Amino acid sequence: MTSPNISRRGDQIQESPIRKLAPLAADAAKRGISIHHLNIGQPDIPTPVEFWDAVKSNMNNVLAYGPSIGIPELRESICGYYSRSGISIEPDEVMITTGGSEAVIFSMIATCDPGDEILCFEPFYTNYNGFATLAGVSLVPITSSAENGFHLPPSEEITSRITERTRAILICNPNNPTGTILTDTEIADLADIVSRYNIYLLADEVYRDFAFDGRKHSSILEFAGIADRAVVMDSISKRFSSCGARLGNIITRNKSLMKTFVKFGQARLCPPTLPQYGAAEMYRSLTEDYYKSIVSMYQNRRDILMQELHGREGIFFLKPEGAFYATIKIPVENSDDFAAWMLTDFSVDGWTTMVAPAEGFYATPGMGLDEIRIAYVLEENKMRSALEILKVGLLEYRSSR
Amino acid sequence: MTSPNISRRGDQIQESPIRKLAPLAADAAKRGISIHHLNIGQPDIPTPVEFWDAVKSNMNNVLAYGPSIGIPELRESICGYYSRSGISIEPDEVMITTGGSEAVIFSMIATCDPGDEILCFEPFYTNYNGFATLAGVSLVPITSSAENGFHLPPSEEITSRITERTRAILICNPNNPTGTILTDTEIADLADIVSRYNIYLLADEVYRDFAFDGRKHSSILEFAGIADRAVVMDSISKRFSSCGARLGNIITRNKSLMKTFVKFGQARLCPPTLPQYGAAEMYRSLTEDYYKSIVSMYQNRRDILMQELHGREGIFFLKPEGAFYATIKIPVENSDDFAAWMLTDFSVDGWTTMVAPAEGFYATPGMGLDEIRIAYVLEENKMRSALEILKVGLLEYRSSR
Repeated sequence: MTSPNISRRGDQIQESPIRKLAPLAADAAKRGISIHHLNIGQPDIPTPVEFWDAVKSNMNNVLAYGPSIGIPELRESICGYYSRSGISIEPDEVMITTGGSEAVIFSMIATCDPGDEILCFEPFYTNYNGFATLAGVSLVPITSSAENGFHLPPSEEITSRITERTRAILICNPNNPTGTILTDTEIADLADIVSRYNIYLLADEVYRDFAFDGRKHSSILEFAGIADRAVVMDSISKRFSSCGARLGNIITRNKSLMKTFVKFGQARLCPPTLPQYGAAEMYRSLTEDYYKSIVSMYQNRRDILMQELHGREGIFFLKPEGAFYATIKIPVENSDDFAAWMLTDFSVDGWTTMVAPAEGFYATPGMGLDEIRIAYVLEENKMRSALEILKVGLLEYRSSR
Repeated sequence: MTSPNISRRGDQIQESPIRKLAPLAADAAKRGISIHHLNIGQPDIPTPVEFWDAVKSNMNNVLAYGPSIGIPELRESICGYYSRSGISIEPDEVMITTGGSEAVIFSMIATCDPGDEILCFEPFYTNYNGFATLAGVSLVPITSSAENGFHLPPSEEITSRITERTRAILICNPNNPTGTILTDTEIADLADIVSRYNIYLLADEVYRDFAFDGRKHSSILEFAGIADRAVVMDSISKRFSSCGARLGNIITRNKSLMKTFVKFGQARLCPPTLPQYGAAEMYRSLTEDYYKSIVSMYQNRRDILMQELHGREGIFFLKPEGAFYATIKIPVENSDDFAAWMLTDFSVDGWTTMVAPAEGFYATPGMGLDEIRIAYVLEENKMRSALEILKVGLLEYRSSR
């Protein structure tokens, strides 16, 4: 029997480089190997009790649909969160989405038609590839390099890639997978470019609370003159260690654009109802102390990463400025092969370490083959142990080639 | 300042005809008017206690990402549910989605590229329009009519609409918005067509439990020879009155297609984690008695609808066979205007009734203007009261024209 074809986009969509090694990890686990997961941005930090309590107290009789735009309590509490950073937004400029993922998809489809282009700086969050394939949008990569800490290339290099089909520039700031935080000058340059070329600026600011060494993250919402072009995508996943809630949001002051987001939102009815009450309570109740404690915890883990890997022979990366990732050059020819080998052929006292090969974070073929992404989401002792195992593995892998 | 354009698909996506009257309803509420909601498929039936208990007992420390394909417990429990209907499927043939909505989107994008066509029978679930716009797919409508209870037109009429770009036939069975249940002969004819033309058969079977008058719903999974073409989309929203959980699933025995679904699923990481435990417990624990009680409740409401509206002057519909909707011809020129008027200009003792104008359930311009969709999701007394108000409103509306 002939089967009908899969769509081209279905054929083309990449397997997640973060998740595709999962079967090898499962096999390792079957062989009794324990795994340190530095491959995925899944924090080990407890979801705040405020979340659980609010969810419990909203377990009403019927788990009903909520508003397509999200419950008012949550949209208002997000405005409160921003006002504490001196950023003024209104509840009707905020739409709740099913995870940051949906926020990115809605941003793409509301600004682009199939065949349109979005500029982005590689390495970038690999799942943008998946969303772009889904949306039929071409991601046009502009390469940033480890040598300058993955900061932006000169403006001319950016503008030279703008075509008739370019609809937006997409940034992730603080950056996944590099940990880079854009300076105000860099954002101002981007604001200038999107204004001159009449395109959108889409900013994934999921990691905005995680800025280290006293840095302050600036949101694109703080830059004058781009109110109609600025779209912020956000999520509670990392901020409140609530990845499984699947709640994010999208913010824009462009009323036509928000109306378009809501129409797409109506098609999928609503984001999950129950966790929205938990999220609203966290935004309302958690104080500056909570945010400070989280940042200092991740900064401490970043410091362990520096101590364990920085300056080692053949390893290169600059000190990450925020988020909880680093993209690290390692002395191998194919980090995909190395990451797989760590799961299939290596362990120390029954343990191994899982990392994400960086190739999938690039759109330019052949880039990232000598890089890995590390998510420093484990507590101190586990981080040290995971990195020690990684170093030993790296030595053994190289000597086995 | 010039603003950048919204995408064409963003301009084109319809406002939900089910939800677009919500602002008028909100205004009515502000004026102190209470509303019977027959406009939206939001059951008033309590979400089973098994759901709440399982959710509570899985409130672990960290609300983490789950597997992209869904937790094994839920996929296995769904196989158990099908095996009780004599349908054999394996857990790796089931993927959990974020609501039935995502199941439909994944079905469309995995089988179609932008510009491809899907045949569907109008009136159809209006949100298919939104998903199709999102996916860049053209829905090609084949009109079914109230006069034969919205059953399928002859095969030749279906095959005459198949072109080079046709990738699938999409059905909703039992049907939203008509309540029609396809006969085995009708499904067999569709199975024959998709085999001859080498295309997919996509079936939204969200209402499969709701078959009245002793009817048995047949799933496309029961038809031989189409294992590689059959895709079932499902949801717990109606079955377990859990609309706000946002959990659905997609079933196919086509391994390449399932692999494609999972790749799209990886991009959005995972469906909501917590309610999956609740859903698994409902699938495992709820017995035949639960399903019987729900069907008899909806059948009773359907009977009230028949008593109150059937055979009234100017009103036409055949007895709905399943689901909990009816598409009803009413003696007005524009049901959109009538539905709005019921909210803005009419009430009886402080109450009015909200219905969904049927125009948005058609893709052919001008169709459905004299029809409304009623969701009979309210308990007996409220149903009677809502329909009484609707009848009085209809009389007053007509005499005011």
